[in-house]
Amino acid sequence: MLEQHAVAVRDGRIEAVLPAQQAAVRFPGYQELELKNHVLMPGLVNAHTHAAMSLLRGLADDLPLMRWLEEHIWPAEAKHVSREFVRDGTLVACAEMIRGGITCFNDMYFYPDASLEAALAAGLRSAQGMIVIEFPSAYAADAADYLRRGLEVRDRHRDEPLASFCLAPHAPYTVSDASLKQVATLAAELDVPVHIHLHETQDEIDRSLAEHGVRPLERLASFGLVGPGLVAVHAVHLSGAEIDLLARQGASVVHCPSSNLKLASGFAPVQALLKKGVNVALGTDGAASNNRLDLFQEMRTAALLAKAVGNDPQAMPAHAAVRAATLSGAKALGLEEITGSIQAGKAADLIAVDFSAPELSPCYDVVSHLVYVAGRENVSHVWVAGRLLMRDREFENPALERLDSRGQLWQNAVRKHADS
Amino acid sequence: MLEQHAVAVRDGRIEAVLPAQQAAVRFPGYQELELKNHVLMPGLVNAHTHAAMSLLRGLADDLPLMRWLEEHIWPAEAKHVSREFVRDGTLVACAEMIRGGITCFNDMYFYPDASLEAALAAGLRSAQGMIVIEFPSAYAADAADYLRRGLEVRDRHRDEPLASFCLAPHAPYTVSDASLKQVATLAAELDVPVHIHLHETQDEIDRSLAEHGVRPLERLASFGLVGPGLVAVHAVHLSGAEIDLLARQGASVVHCPSSNLKLASGFAPVQALLKKGVNVALGTDGAASNNRLDLFQEMRTAALLAKAVGNDPQAMPAHAAVRAATLSGAKALGLEEITGSIQAGKAADLIAVDFSAPELSPCYDVVSHLVYVAGRENVSHVWVAGRLLMRDREFENPALERLDSRGQLWQNAVRKHADS
Repeated sequence: MLEQHAVAVRDGRIEAVLPAQQAAVRFPGYQELELKNHVLMPGLVNAHTHAAMSLLRGLADDLPLMRWLEEHIWPAEAKHVSREFVRDGTLVACAEMIRGGITCFNDMYFYPDASLEAALAAGLRSAQGMIVIEFPSAYAADAADYLRRGLEVRDRHRDEPLASFCLAPHAPYTVSDASLKQVATLAAELDVPVHIHLHETQDEIDRSLAEHGVRPLERLASFGLVGPGLVAVHAVHLSGAEIDLLARQGASVVHCPSSNLKLASGFAPVQALLKKGVNVALGTDGAASNNRLDLFQEMRTAALLAKAVGNDPQAMPAHAAVRAATLSGAKALGLEEITGSIQAGKAADLIAVDFSAPELSPCYDVVSHLVYVAGRENVSHVWVAGRLLMRDREFENPALERLDSRGQLWQNAVRKHADS
Repeated sequence: MLEQHAVAVRDGRIEAVLPAQQAAVRFPGYQELELKNHVLMPGLVNAHTHAAMSLLRGLADDLPLMRWLEEHIWPAEAKHVSREFVRDGTLVACAEMIRGGITCFNDMYFYPDASLEAALAAGLRSAQGMIVIEFPSAYAADAADYLRRGLEVRDRHRDEPLASFCLAPHAPYTVSDASLKQVATLAAELDVPVHIHLHETQDEIDRSLAEHGVRPLERLASFGLVGPGLVAVHAVHLSGAEIDLLARQGASVVHCPSSNLKLASGFAPVQALLKKGVNVALGTDGAASNNRLDLFQEMRTAALLAKAVGNDPQAMPAHAAVRAATLSGAKALGLEEITGSIQAGKAADLIAVDFSAPELSPCYDVVSHLVYVAGRENVSHVWVAGRLLMRDREFENPALERLDSRGQLWQNAVRKHADS
């Protein structure tokens, strides 16, 4: 932690980090913004979400997983999900994420082109999942169609500096062996991460044992999918040997503590993963299972929960939670050269947290306060690639304003259908 | 949930709850405040805190319990705790609690007279613990002295409408049999609740078995302390028979989920307690072990955690969390006739939550949003006994302003001592 320091930014990149006194001398003529009572930190990386589901936030809560999916979420999605739904929903999600200090998110949903369009309109960096699932939807007919459409989006936007891509087979129980093999081949060819819900519930593991004779991670390993590009989302149920495998192969885990709790999925072995050196990122999951796209909340919940689960009050200290929400997230998405820390040469993806709220006083330890005390409401400024998206909690980007009316229209449509 | 309704308030009490259209007719000449985009709900009841410890917030985190206590918290308390420390610290805590929609809190700390003075200055309702502990402090010499001083405070303020009192033996491992017997006698004489840390850690139970031959709850029961007045704080480690005993005796539990997680105390069996009909309230615990005096956070954490612990996504639904944070808290403190719900005849302890923030849109279910989505920053207005303490997030009470400088003075003193 550096006090009284400045970050010099030019052309969207961090040019230098240096004592504030030297900044004016070394960089004369730069526009200056003094943040007196603030912590400047890397923008947060939300390593797993389904952004457009913000339009279904709180549609059905406190229900068993299958009833929740089969009676509420899937019917609502089947009825309403369209290109326009995804664009509007992602824009609503981007507004929420920016207000909470998130500068980069991974998305896994239908119509990644619409999600990317919304993210670019919002000014956010995004890693778009090229989703693969065996079920038809309004978006695609079958696994091959999903892949083809995802690859088209990637081809069309490969030079976009705020976009990156990953292959996103939905989950072991929704993607066939044939599709997983194809994903493995493409991942090697294109050198992109493979983002997948993995070992989320005991039921998933039991089904895999019954249908494939092995646990899902072993099944993925048999296709060569367990390597540095693997992004294992949730990873709640892991044996010691599986944790060792993830560590040895340099895979990443995206921990989504609020979602795991809400869906009663189980308790992820975060302390054990960190001890073995696995790269642990944080994700909010979608707004239907959390219901906040809020990485301050996930940092706090992750750090607190790891202690109780590990029976060790020293598990996941505050600094580890901040790292998980920033640099480890960037690494999971293959973006650690671009974002996730304040370092010369990286993109100026930065947020300021205002420490002047009464709740943050007194303050003995800034990092502890960021995790255990601060909330997303304390984020005052957000920059992505040097562009100021929020200043003193006011959006600078007009695309983020007046989204309520769009959200309201979708809410009325969804509610009308649910009531009928 | 009532839509388009009004609450009529006179002389600090709720006079009527009625459709908004009728209110102007039935109560002409009343000052009117229209809350267009808000939920009006009972003020939250923080059923367990050590308010003045806000001055030690984040002093030492991510440490094992005994090192945390022995090397950091206790030395800091021994050096700094005084009447002035408690008054200033409680005022800082009250400012935080009011900003988070808490209208009533139970305090357990040294110098309850100073805590009460601060609570009254802040305008908050409080249940002051008459603390009993066998260790000498700047406040009192021995258990008899603690009791005498506590009873003095109660006698002096018994007619104060915003004050109530409870006996507060600190914990089974810090209070002797003789003192517990005296507490039982006094509780019966005075008809006040008995508020005690109970079954917080496995270590507490093991020590009781070694020293007394019984678990702490059984020890309390042997003194006649397990009844409707018992407020068992934490209650993490409970057998089925102990849950049955608490239910049968009409005792209350104060669940403090953030504190239990942070100190790795264990997972309280909240779903089992609720199923058996035990009155479960919520507490923040002190700012040294949480570190937010934030019942919105505790509602959310309690509701999410209960699902994972109970392996049931239907455990502690949103409505149960709101009840725990309001009416059940009032009941635990013996104040259910006075506060905890919006009902004619009760005190006008009310808060408004502004639903116009982008994060709260769309909204399919108001109660779900209060628990899973809203944060304390969405509280716009706070009234205690009809007095407006916060309006659109600005304090109406000048006693709550400029507390930063007092907090800063204490922080400097504590830090100087800790560094020496």
